[in-house]
Amino acid sequence: MEPDNLKSILEDVKAGRRTVDDAIEDLKYLPFEDLGFAKLDHHRQLRNGYPEVIYCQGKKLDHIQAIVERMAARGQVNILATRAGRDVYEAVKKVVPDAEFHELARIVTVRRVQIPPLKGKIAVVSAGTSDLPVAEEAAVTAEVLGNTVERMYDVGVAGLHRLLANARTLNEANVIIVVAGMEGALASVVGGLVDKPVIAVPTSVGYGANFGGLSALLCMLNSCASGVAVVNIDNGFGAGYMASTINRLAQ
Amino acid sequence: MEPDNLKSILEDVKAGRRTVDDAIEDLKYLPFEDLGFAKLDHHRQLRNGYPEVIYCQGKKLDHIQAIVERMAARGQVNILATRAGRDVYEAVKKVVPDAEFHELARIVTVRRVQIPPLKGKIAVVSAGTSDLPVAEEAAVTAEVLGNTVERMYDVGVAGLHRLLANARTLNEANVIIVVAGMEGALASVVGGLVDKPVIAVPTSVGYGANFGGLSALLCMLNSCASGVAVVNIDNGFGAGYMASTINRLAQ
Amino acid sequence: MEPDNLKSILEDVKAGRRTVDDAIEDLKYLPFEDLGFAKLDHHRQLRNGYPEVIYCQGKKLDHIQAIVERMAARGQVNILATRAGRDVYEAVKKVVPDAEFHELARIVTVRRVQIPPLKGKIAVVSAGTSDLPVAEEAAVTAEVLGNTVERMYDVGVAGLHRLLANARTLNEANVIIVVAGMEGALASVVGGLVDKPVIAVPTSVGYGANFGGLSALLCMLNSCASGVAVVNIDNGFGAGYMASTINRLAQ
Amino acid sequence: MEPDNLKSILEDVKAGRRTVDDAIEDLKYLPFEDLGFAKLDHHRQLRNGYPEVIYCQGKKLDHIQAIVERMAARGQVNILATRAGRDVYEAVKKVVPDAEFHELARIVTVRRVQIPPLKGKIAVVSAGTSDLPVAEEAAVTAEVLGNTVERMYDVGVAGLHRLLANARTLNEANVIIVVAGMEGALASVVGGLVDKPVIAVPTSVGYGANFGGLSALLCMLNSCASGVAVVNIDNGFGAGYMASTINRLAQ
Amino acid sequence: MEPDNLKSILEDVKAGRRTVDDAIEDLKYLPFEDLGFAKLDHHRQLRNGYPEVIYCQGKKLDHIQAIVERMAARGQVNILATRAGRDVYEAVKKVVPDAEFHELARIVTVRRVQIPPLKGKIAVVSAGTSDLPVAEEAAVTAEVLGNTVERMYDVGVAGLHRLLANARTLNEANVIIVVAGMEGALASVVGGLVDKPVIAVPTSVGYGANFGGLSALLCMLNSCASGVAVVNIDNGFGAGYMASTINRLAQ
Amino acid sequence: MEPDNLKSILEDVKAGRRTVDDAIEDLKYLPFEDLGFAKLDHHRQLRNGYPEVIYCQGKKLDHIQAIVERMAARGQVNILATRAGRDVYEAVKKVVPDAEFHELARIVTVRRVQIPPLKGKIAVVSAGTSDLPVAEEAAVTAEVLGNTVERMYDVGVAGLHRLLANARTLNEANVIIVVAGMEGALASVVGGLVDKPVIAVPTSVGYGANFGGLSALLCMLNSCASGVAVVNIDNGFGAGYMASTINRLAQ
Amino acid sequence: MEPDNLKSILEDVKAGRRTVDDAIEDLKYLPFEDLGFAKLDHHRQLRNGYPEVIYCQGKKLDHIQAIVERMAARGQVNILATRAGRDVYEAVKKVVPDAEFHELARIVTVRRVQIPPLKGKIAVVSAGTSDLPVAEEAAVTAEVLGNTVERMYDVGVAGLHRLLANARTLNEANVIIVVAGMEGALASVVGGLVDKPVIAVPTSVGYGANFGGLSALLCMLNSCASGVAVVNIDNGFGAGYMASTINRLAQ
Amino acid sequence: MEPDNLKSILEDVKAGRRTVDDAIEDLKYLPFEDLGFAKLDHHRQLRNGYPEVIYCQGKKLDHIQAIVERMAARGQVNILATRAGRDVYEAVKKVVPDAEFHELARIVTVRRVQIPPLKGKIAVVSAGTSDLPVAEEAAVTAEVLGNTVERMYDVGVAGLHRLLANARTLNEANVIIVVAGMEGALASVVGGLVDKPVIAVPTSVGYGANFGGLSALLCMLNSCASGVAVVNIDNGFGAGYMASTINRLAQ
Repeated sequence: MEPDNLKSILEDVKAGRRTVDDAIEDLKYLPFEDLGFAKLDHHRQLRNGYPEVIYCQGKKLDHIQAIVERMAARGQVNILATRAGRDVYEAVKKVVPDAEFHELARIVTVRRVQIPPLKGKIAVVSAGTSDLPVAEEAAVTAEVLGNTVERMYDVGVAGLHRLLANARTLNEANVIIVVAGMEGALASVVGGLVDKPVIAVPTSVGYGANFGGLSALLCMLNSCASGVAVVNIDNGFGAGYMASTINRLAQ
Repeated sequence: MEPDNLKSILEDVKAGRRTVDDAIEDLKYLPFEDLGFAKLDHHRQLRNGYPEVIYCQGKKLDHIQAIVERMAARGQVNILATRAGRDVYEAVKKVVPDAEFHELARIVTVRRVQIPPLKGKIAVVSAGTSDLPVAEEAAVTAEVLGNTVERMYDVGVAGLHRLLANARTLNEANVIIVVAGMEGALASVVGGLVDKPVIAVPTSVGYGANFGGLSALLCMLNSCASGVAVVNIDNGFGAGYMASTINRLAQ
Repeated sequence: MEPDNLKSILEDVKAGRRTVDDAIEDLKYLPFEDLGFAKLDHHRQLRNGYPEVIYCQGKKLDHIQAIVERMAARGQVNILATRAGRDVYEAVKKVVPDAEFHELARIVTVRRVQIPPLKGKIAVVSAGTSDLPVAEEAAVTAEVLGNTVERMYDVGVAGLHRLLANARTLNEANVIIVVAGMEGALASVVGGLVDKPVIAVPTSVGYGANFGGLSALLCMLNSCASGVAVVNIDNGFGAGYMASTINRLAQ
Repeated sequence: MEPDNLKSILEDVKAGRRTVDDAIEDLKYLPFEDLGFAKLDHHRQLRNGYPEVIYCQGKKLDHIQAIVERMAARGQVNILATRAGRDVYEAVKKVVPDAEFHELARIVTVRRVQIPPLKGKIAVVSAGTSDLPVAEEAAVTAEVLGNTVERMYDVGVAGLHRLLANARTLNEANVIIVVAGMEGALASVVGGLVDKPVIAVPTSVGYGANFGGLSALLCMLNSCASGVAVVNIDNGFGAGYMASTINRLAQ
Repeated sequence: MEPDNLKSILEDVKAGRRTVDDAIEDLKYLPFEDLGFAKLDHHRQLRNGYPEVIYCQGKKLDHIQAIVERMAARGQVNILATRAGRDVYEAVKKVVPDAEFHELARIVTVRRVQIPPLKGKIAVVSAGTSDLPVAEEAAVTAEVLGNTVERMYDVGVAGLHRLLANARTLNEANVIIVVAGMEGALASVVGGLVDKPVIAVPTSVGYGANFGGLSALLCMLNSCASGVAVVNIDNGFGAGYMASTINRLAQ
Repeated sequence: MEPDNLKSILEDVKAGRRTVDDAIEDLKYLPFEDLGFAKLDHHRQLRNGYPEVIYCQGKKLDHIQAIVERMAARGQVNILATRAGRDVYEAVKKVVPDAEFHELARIVTVRRVQIPPLKGKIAVVSAGTSDLPVAEEAAVTAEVLGNTVERMYDVGVAGLHRLLANARTLNEANVIIVVAGMEGALASVVGGLVDKPVIAVPTSVGYGANFGGLSALLCMLNSCASGVAVVNIDNGFGAGYMASTINRLAQ
Repeated sequence: MEPDNLKSILEDVKAGRRTVDDAIEDLKYLPFEDLGFAKLDHHRQLRNGYPEVIYCQGKKLDHIQAIVERMAARGQVNILATRAGRDVYEAVKKVVPDAEFHELARIVTVRRVQIPPLKGKIAVVSAGTSDLPVAEEAAVTAEVLGNTVERMYDVGVAGLHRLLANARTLNEANVIIVVAGMEGALASVVGGLVDKPVIAVPTSVGYGANFGGLSALLCMLNSCASGVAVVNIDNGFGAGYMASTINRLAQ
Repeated sequence: MEPDNLKSILEDVKAGRRTVDDAIEDLKYLPFEDLGFAKLDHHRQLRNGYPEVIYCQGKKLDHIQAIVERMAARGQVNILATRAGRDVYEAVKKVVPDAEFHELARIVTVRRVQIPPLKGKIAVVSAGTSDLPVAEEAAVTAEVLGNTVERMYDVGVAGLHRLLANARTLNEANVIIVVAGMEGALASVVGGLVDKPVIAVPTSVGYGANFGGLSALLCMLNSCASGVAVVNIDNGFGAGYMASTINRLAQ
């Protein structure tokens, strides 16, 4: 039922074409959205440049093409396709030529609405070079959402000095995303250095008793540092989105 | 917002005391329940004798007393308090003297509304004597909800003949609840004997590699017999409720 | 031993050709089935159009061909082959040309016996587009077993309004199958909206701490809503079969 | 900064080209603690009313007494003792008579520094009554840190209407803390309703396949809603602290 | 239905008092046991001194008393009550004064039928002193079943010489039971020394990453030595019973 | 044996009070290997036709070729190569033309020593057709070791009658090997039907909450039937070897 | 050594070509124990002051008394009883009055042999105050074995400066023991600061997703720093012993 | 060091009471990195022939080429590339022709600095032939770091005599690395034979309930032998590095 529909029910009531009791019956199962709440919110976000998001992993190329094409047809829209390899990009570019590829982040974007840049920075800190794809997924997501991102990569705890050398920069960010696999200790160390919210992203990087990222996940959940919250293993997008949601509060 | 409230908005519209646009604004954030959906459903269930349910484990006695007392004050109401020891019963009886105790099932009931008895039977089958409390929780729950229950206890697969001796009775029930700990094999065997829905309840009965019921849970989820679905470990109440919901369809 | 065999033993006893003691000895190890119980049941099901079921995953194409060919040779029979890709369909069609392919459901069917359609509906609700293959496996299974299926796909909890818009339809079904991966929260939400039996199917859709469907499985087993039971991860067939078994009670 | 750099700073100091104060400033973010960084930060926080935190679980009463007494002796200090039963409170009150007890939250506080109240609200949403202690731990922690807290308890997904009735209030908060045990689905549902950061706290409430909170934890980590991050099981304090850190950005 | 019952059906048939068709109907659902199979076996075992077994853990004293009393009333019977503390023994002795207590094994026995002693020996090997209760449960079980048991305790792999000093004795046994907690390596070492069947019993002895016996269980299941099979954690009774079943083959 | 003892043996030898051969015999079980124990045993086994065993999985073809060729060069030797596909067989046949291939069992054998056939039978029972490779690995292993094997395949618990029809044959075997994946309930059912040792082999057959065979493994370890012991997941060889070790005792 | 070799040694002895003492020496490392190897080693350790070790947890007081009394009766002996509460100490002191109690370490010692102090230091670093008992168990164990121990407690990664302030001291130790619960990140940080062997001890300190120490255990096993090895959860004794074994090499 | 302290150092420098070099020395261990600590240490290690380490698994060939080429360009440097297949070697050789390949160890090395050989030996003991790659990774790592390595392969506990025959050699090493998959019992047996530090490396070799090395990992962590510490599953490099760090103490 469209909002117009709600309006016409009420106009029927007003005009006496529908009794109050009939209207109550009509409204009883009337779904939430049709009252305009969700839809308005959805539209408001799209107007503000909030991207449509597609998780590409496990989807077929022609399926992704179709989704992106349909979205792009709306014109003034931003699109963020995650877990996208070069093959996804090639496929998307055929139907949406202005698509861009962030290879390391495995992200394809279409940007047609200018998002007003947010003040403040989001720092993305990663432990090892193998964590880069997840870190970049977080960073590019945050950027597409209008944030300025400060990258500090390869600053794992085994060489603490590299991290400490960046302590000041860390403290100047509004939010810090920490991306680490193996033992994931970096989140606790960063959490102890700053008094800003830290979003920790465990990665599946490692082997053996790493158990696909479980090691880093548990480490981060048990962090002895306050002000650390955790997203799913390898969920760079989620961290970037969460950090942006937080940074928007700081405007 | 009460349903009356919705009515008065509509009457205001009808009477021209409120514009259609104002009414739309009023209704936009109007919550689901207040449109009467949930509440009606709630009332309809209570009118039909559906009990209010309290999960007592971990709750303090005076807390339980207060909840039951408040519920009972409504008069025509049924109450089902699960995971209730004798101490809970003693406490409840002080405030609601007509409370009854089903000791083996660890259930306290207050029954003030007559539920029309449902046709057909629910069979409750259990593997060992240690599974009895969970089996009884399922059986008493089903009975309180108006079902006739056929109990077949201590018919574990290690002595298959005891189960086979009851095969005809099993097939005459509308729903079969299978309660088993240790390896939980009984659910598959029963599932292979009948063509009725089987609700499997793993119990935490056992030791060692039983891991608190995980063994029986996994066994039941992987059942090679079709027509078996599983509830949480030790969740006799859930099985009895589910079975009753199914049996009501058979009326 | 055939039922005829049992008969001939008894006739021998009657005619004095076999002593009572000899007959007891003959009958002692006489297996259950041969007394007619299981076999009758088996035949009764097949006569009623109940399909023979083949789980194709991990089976070789020529093996599947042989099984289906042998089954189909019986003539008046229905066949349901699950986890079947296009290659399975191509192979089966060569030996059984009237086989049909349900691509999304990954099911191949042979339908030669008309099943009398059951009254009432089974609703199949799924959270995301990636859950579709499992949802379709459930839906097609239920349809092959004679049920009318109402599909409601892509109504995950992150956009609750889509689900609520279908609340009335949900409540009109006899059984609801909920298919969801990731966190599996949909089962609880649906369970809270309806008072019909809900069969929850966790899927392996997701990544990281999803652990191959464990996340959704545990979520559904711990559902705070009553009237929810769970089948194995990705077990669309099991859910469709269970729902059909329940719906048959409602006739 | 290179060693040469350090040398040149010192040589500048020696040569009078740089004042001692300038040099201290230069060195502050250099390597840290000993150069005053951590200590300054520590002091700054204490001056601003940031409490000293004690995790009481597993600590002996006289040990807690000693710690609190020593802290309180500093005078202008706030103290937050978590996981504190009435026995802890009684013990603390003997040595610090102005200690206060938040029984449901299991928190003892000493408040001697006025924290300037932060603008905006933190909403604390909890699923069931058994989740209350954790929810209150989060709420009281946030309050002690200067935040205004909006409590919405007992709004679990099995009765969705209670949550939806509060949708507007949820969207007016800067941060939402969601506390839920059992299947933890509430975090996803809330995450789908709001566009503010959601801090999810799984609780150990439940039984069986809940596995001490693992069920809710996995559910929340796999949330299909964006903008959700998770803290450790039962970690109300951590959620309150994290939310406060975020809310401070919104000033 | 008793075997007499089967006989009387047949005699009715013979005498023409019951038609063959009626008899088939009577026999159709006739359970397995009643055809004498299971019952004969059961009786044969009891006649041979096979004990009735009661698992006492989690059972109430008066419940155990009642079971044992009822069993003992049959006269010529042996009883084996496992996981029985001194309190169980005291309770049992009141109703069955000839009960005996094997304190270390936590077993109460009633022995009224002489089991003919079996030839050959069962060796029970245990790693540490904390494994003794499980080892003794295995040993006493085997003895009650008629076996001669050779005990070799405290021969863990950290002091290999103690085990090797007993290598000849090990090889002279028909079956070897290996009881070990912690890392459970003893089963592999013994399995490499002998060419007799080895029954491995992991125990829950240990701490930390022992995870309640999981460590020893996995170790034993993955034994690189051939001829090793495993029973449940702490299942001394099962190992003793299995070993006896094997040793009986060697008569 | 004390060091003094060793000394006195040597002094006896020196003094001619003990022959060198007697001393060797005395020392044989002393410390072992180097005194000839293991080696003798090894030789004795090979002389008796005990095969050399090679686990082929993960080994390269030329590596396997080399091992088998070296073994075969000894002449009178039997070889059992497990987890061997057709490619392994082709490779082995090039260097050892008398190698045989058991395709279903994935075993390559070389048999040059006649093993005297053992009396009695080993029954191999399997639940589903997908369990066949593991069942055949067990059966062929047992046969190569001189046992007569009775195969009963596809007798899973969902169709109990198929198993019961074979109850007499089961009880006539000396040892029963039960091979089952999914929920593994077959082991308990068989264990309840027979009074012979049962070796249970969980298989990794299944999906979802099967977790690679964990479900069947836990089920079998927690079997409520006595006389069941378990080997590693998919370890058909181990079961066949263990069963043979037991059956040898029955000669 | 070949059997021929043994024969020739014996024949040499017989022929007087080799003295009995030479032969004993030849045989000593042959096969072992009985040839005196283990026993000699055992004696040598005891002579050098190596303590007898008793793990008290789960042992009864009178049992511990008996063991300690018997050990102490040998006179020149050191004893190390771990996991010993004050009650153990009181019990031991009654029979061995010169026993000492290390309350925090939960260790009772009897020291009657002077161990020559080892050169170099072992550093014991712990993260939080709750880790102290395990840290002290490691420290006291190392001291009893003759090492000088440098304690650095409460230097967790959330306040990195406390650790860095001790960096020089850390690097001066020969071995570093790191004791940490919760996320266990301290081991990686210390491992990155020093080039000495680090023995990491995860503790069970924490709650929720700590899973009894699993979190810290996995973190330490996955340490990105080289030169870190791990002992069991809470195994302070094992760490102290291992560190001492290493430090002895540095003499 | 207090801030005042820093100030006074600077004032001393300013006043000429302290030389710049003394001040640098004072500041060196203060805060570190930037004061030269880490860098110096880094340089010192490289000067001494400590290799740069690259973990190749998951890295692309051109990426590895680039890293190695850049490192090699520094001239006097050693490089250790682990988890490197022949393809990695071929790629590296193109840019660094003096690279060497250790095929079994999957290691590529570049050795341009002579490391002074360390005294004493490191023994590398492995259980089965499948454990060889990990064992060789440990051995080659230790050799590249200047150690002499004694290899003892294929000495698993199922054939204990092979291990015992090497007992003397084991005791002559300074450190023993034990590499074992499946049940990992070898670490405990070796730990019981020697009084030197044992570094245990669980491998993922095995199947079924091995769970990717978990079985061996838990076994080794729970070792009943003292003096055993564990590294990550398959972490041969870590064991070789740890052993070398220990052996350096013995110089």
